[in-house]
Amino acid sequence: MNKIAHIGIAVTSLDDMIPFYRDQLGLTFQGKEEVPSEHVRVAFFKIGESAIELLEPLNDDSPIAKFIDKKGEGIHHVALDVDDINARLDHLKSEGVPLIHDEPKTGAHDSQVAFLHPKAANGVLFELCQQK
Amino acid sequence: MNKIAHIGIAVTSLDDMIPFYRDQLGLTFQGKEEVPSEHVRVAFFKIGESAIELLEPLNDDSPIAKFIDKKGEGIHHVALDVDDINARLDHLKSEGVPLIHDEPKTGAHDSQVAFLHPKAANGVLFELCQQK
Repeated sequence: MNKIAHIGIAVTSLDDMIPFYRDQLGLTFQGKEEVPSEHVRVAFFKIGESAIELLEPLNDDSPIAKFIDKKGEGIHHVALDVDDINARLDHLKSEGVPLIHDEPKTGAHDSQVAFLHPKAANGVLFELCQQK
Repeated sequence: MNKIAHIGIAVTSLDDMIPFYRDQLGLTFQGKEEVPSEHVRVAFFKIGESAIELLEPLNDDSPIAKFIDKKGEGIHHVALDVDDINARLDHLKSEGVPLIHDEPKTGAHDSQVAFLHPKAANGVLFELCQQK
């Protein structure tokens, strides 16, 4: 694992929260993006080698809408940057670690991503992320 | 803000979870430490410029025991590294951001730390941390 790629935080409104992260915490705002395949709109803030990603649901079908309904706003996942996601997934499978994705899928900016099952990690949802 | 200092994860047993973070995720285990003032035992794992900190309650008075009772195991807080914690707290106060600690207190390794109130940040508990 190279670094924490980002911490994903579920929010009901990006626009309501951008001032807190940008002006009050003083992080570098990197812009907003819509990800229709995931039914979310996201905002990124740079902090050191990592980022904070705010996720706003686009509709009730969004996994983020379901998360907020069940648990309220808050940290949704932690993404870890890896060099070789396939080798990492093979290692986790050989160790019997429960996974949501057995194979990588394409994420934002053509990255390859896969989620571990939160029961592997005390309820924490870890994402593996290999940059293009 | 310089970087994510660490992500703090509440667990019922450090020893049960160390193998997952060390052997399965492959993070660098940096050791365990007891922090009696906080009623916790902690384990640190290095990842890039950041760390993952597991927190195990020492007794029922521990804030971590209360957190696990209420919400279950999972992410407890996110610590952000700052150069000047007093200037940062003054800025947050001037912006009307709700804080748990108005003034820094001494944390692990003689760092200075202060927590924002989670209602400031969609339920996320942010810690500011100035290294000695």
